[in-house]
Amino acid sequence: MNEYSKNSMHMTVLMTPDMANFTGTVHGGDILKQIDQVAYACAARYCGKYVVTLSVDRVLFKHPIQVGELVTFYANVNYTGKTSMEVGIKVIAENITNGTVRHTNSCYVTMIALDKNGKPTQIPKLMCISEIEIRRFAEGKFRKAKRLIED
Amino acid sequence: MNEYSKNSMHMTVLMTPDMANFTGTVHGGDILKQIDQVAYACAARYCGKYVVTLSVDRVLFKHPIQVGELVTFYANVNYTGKTSMEVGIKVIAENITNGTVRHTNSCYVTMIALDKNGKPTQIPKLMCISEIEIRRFAEGKFRKAKRLIED
Amino acid sequence: MNEYSKNSMHMTVLMTPDMANFTGTVHGGDILKQIDQVAYACAARYCGKYVVTLSVDRVLFKHPIQVGELVTFYANVNYTGKTSMEVGIKVIAENITNGTVRHTNSCYVTMIALDKNGKPTQIPKLMCISEIEIRRFAEGKFRKAKRLIED
Amino acid sequence: MNEYSKNSMHMTVLMTPDMANFTGTVHGGDILKQIDQVAYACAARYCGKYVVTLSVDRVLFKHPIQVGELVTFYANVNYTGKTSMEVGIKVIAENITNGTVRHTNSCYVTMIALDKNGKPTQIPKLMCISEIEIRRFAEGKFRKAKRLIED
Amino acid sequence: MNEYSKNSMHMTVLMTPDMANFTGTVHGGDILKQIDQVAYACAARYCGKYVVTLSVDRVLFKHPIQVGELVTFYANVNYTGKTSMEVGIKVIAENITNGTVRHTNSCYVTMIALDKNGKPTQIPKLMCISEIEIRRFAEGKFRKAKRLIED
Amino acid sequence: MNEYSKNSMHMTVLMTPDMANFTGTVHGGDILKQIDQVAYACAARYCGKYVVTLSVDRVLFKHPIQVGELVTFYANVNYTGKTSMEVGIKVIAENITNGTVRHTNSCYVTMIALDKNGKPTQIPKLMCISEIEIRRFAEGKFRKAKRLIED
Repeated sequence: MNEYSKNSMHMTVLMTPDMANFTGTVHGGDILKQIDQVAYACAARYCGKYVVTLSVDRVLFKHPIQVGELVTFYANVNYTGKTSMEVGIKVIAENITNGTVRHTNSCYVTMIALDKNGKPTQIPKLMCISEIEIRRFAEGKFRKAKRLIED
Repeated sequence: MNEYSKNSMHMTVLMTPDMANFTGTVHGGDILKQIDQVAYACAARYCGKYVVTLSVDRVLFKHPIQVGELVTFYANVNYTGKTSMEVGIKVIAENITNGTVRHTNSCYVTMIALDKNGKPTQIPKLMCISEIEIRRFAEGKFRKAKRLIED
Repeated sequence: MNEYSKNSMHMTVLMTPDMANFTGTVHGGDILKQIDQVAYACAARYCGKYVVTLSVDRVLFKHPIQVGELVTFYANVNYTGKTSMEVGIKVIAENITNGTVRHTNSCYVTMIALDKNGKPTQIPKLMCISEIEIRRFAEGKFRKAKRLIED
Repeated sequence: MNEYSKNSMHMTVLMTPDMANFTGTVHGGDILKQIDQVAYACAARYCGKYVVTLSVDRVLFKHPIQVGELVTFYANVNYTGKTSMEVGIKVIAENITNGTVRHTNSCYVTMIALDKNGKPTQIPKLMCISEIEIRRFAEGKFRKAKRLIED
Repeated sequence: MNEYSKNSMHMTVLMTPDMANFTGTVHGGDILKQIDQVAYACAARYCGKYVVTLSVDRVLFKHPIQVGELVTFYANVNYTGKTSMEVGIKVIAENITNGTVRHTNSCYVTMIALDKNGKPTQIPKLMCISEIEIRRFAEGKFRKAKRLIED
Repeated sequence: MNEYSKNSMHMTVLMTPDMANFTGTVHGGDILKQIDQVAYACAARYCGKYVVTLSVDRVLFKHPIQVGELVTFYANVNYTGKTSMEVGIKVIAENITNGTVRHTNSCYVTMIALDKNGKPTQIPKLMCISEIEIRRFAEGKFRKAKRLIED
């Protein structure tokens, strides 16, 4: 009944007129808000704890999304540290009427698990078995190191 | 990249506080609004035309949904007439923190395809190959006959 | 100052652009949300308790409603059981500029009264004096029996 | 089916949590927004034209409204000039659970009718037959004169 | 980093389509809601307490605001009584594309400070040093006296 | 009356409960949506053209914002290319009741100007006179070069 694995999920949202500017293009800000929401749900679901956003990596809007399109946000926990997780998000837009599908954005969100007093708390380590899981984990670890240098 | 078949899709939505009453239970009205939205997207995507809702069959709220849960609406075009389609919706709620999943509602929505002048227009006939598709089609046809008597 | 009887009320709402699709027709989902809201207010007001929706019977959208119209939802407690009530809703749309009025939908919503622990709790029995009240009660009772068979 | 006279109407709205501050009191600004909306609908319905708000007279919030209350806005066209109307609004709040009803606010909104080019356009003169209608018209005329001095 | 004095502030808001009627003019009700919000923030910030709206003086909408304009609400505590404050609001609209700026509305909002039990509570007296501050205080005091007569 | 220079502006927003999670912390996604909105207004105002978001650089949420705080988004056009601009955003949160102010986030948004056919169109070159303007322009140019390598 529920096809998701423990560390991945997706959310499909219909783009409604209140998300768009005067020419029918969905605002970047609305996409960012949904990216944050799916990252929140994916991370909370993975660790079974309350989570908050620590950072959202650069997001590029090369392929604008239109009102009326069906947008799916695929989220995956790529990497886990002691109390933080990196969630990768892939955004796919589908034109309902002609069926064309395109990859519009990708980005990385870092979430932190909190205990009941609002302090960072430990999360389960991600189990990586397949080759793609192992590669994603290594890449996430590399991006984390890079972020620590830049901040 | 897009795993949906032509006549089915699903939408996953995080239940936010603005959808709930004072005790944290999501209002039936908010679930109904989302059922209508996913039926709209599923039917428009199936026929590649503009669609409107003709009717929503009885919806039973035996298993209340709470704020903070992740709700998935599975939609499937069960039956097609000349200009109308029956979309079956199955609602699954997941408690993010403990991972329990339950089936909370099911219902049937009838949508009509319209042309550019707002007149009902013909849609492609549903191809039914598997046993389950054939059974769903027959059941949808039966429910349609029943609705015509009751209206 | 308040002309409502104890078991009936109505709500008038102006249809705003955020409720409509791209051609100006109000979404069925928005009408359903308002039907649920007026049923909630009518039932809570009747029994003076906290209520939740148990079911919404089939809703037919034969007469679409347009943005800019003034829509009135008339609600009436038709029937009371031990802890549940059936609320009948009649939807009337008025074109503000030319004054034409039409009956667009009708439906039945079943609400349950809850105590402070969220358990079903007893409600006052509906007093039926006029012929129309007695007929509505009987019809509500019949529909309840029919629902019990179907569920 | 529609009990309104041509120059009066009312709107009943359930106060929801998104309208309130942190202690459950509905913001003055939300009440003002609804006053403007009902005045718009009442004036447009009276003259069958497109209307805009020219002014809202002083509004006093002596009796706060709580989340969960049912609020009815009674609107009445009191006075008509050549292109403008004064709409009187009376706000009544009802506590759903204990049934108490109180008059919380009153105010006067001036609306102007516009033609398709956005220019003020003539409206039908208000027919005053009953004593109360005649008195309201005279009072509205007096308030208009007072406003012209003050502006 | 924060250029506001203790008793003045401003809020800049982009007018979005959900605030407008069918011709692109922003509803008076939306402007009123924002006036109330900025008065709330300005008064709460001045006295460091929880505040509620007591009244909003007459608001005139002679200069309509359009969707897409950038609107700034300048708020200033003009006068303080024992537990109430008068906040003056000046509304300035800017056409983003051609840079023209115009003064569209002004009004006075009276706020009351409340303690934790919801009772009116004392606020610090406004320090008036400059000539303009002294004049505004005197004018606010005069308007308060006038309101007391009218209510 | 309007104190902004041509290439800078700010927007002040009161954090309302609908922007927060269950513990009162404002969601990162809501802050991102407002960052995008202020960048849009700042860039459109600078070039007098219609603009869209090309990218939002990494945003760090080290200092969470609470419901009830007053948040100011300071925006500044730092750098202009032929058809794109970099807008720097600085986010300052103020606790209304105790007056403390803190710098919570900073980020860079790249916007592109479009003509009426939706094609990128030329914008005026930023005039840099003061030392800080010249430094910001150089830094913006450097970040652009870095982004081109990374994309």
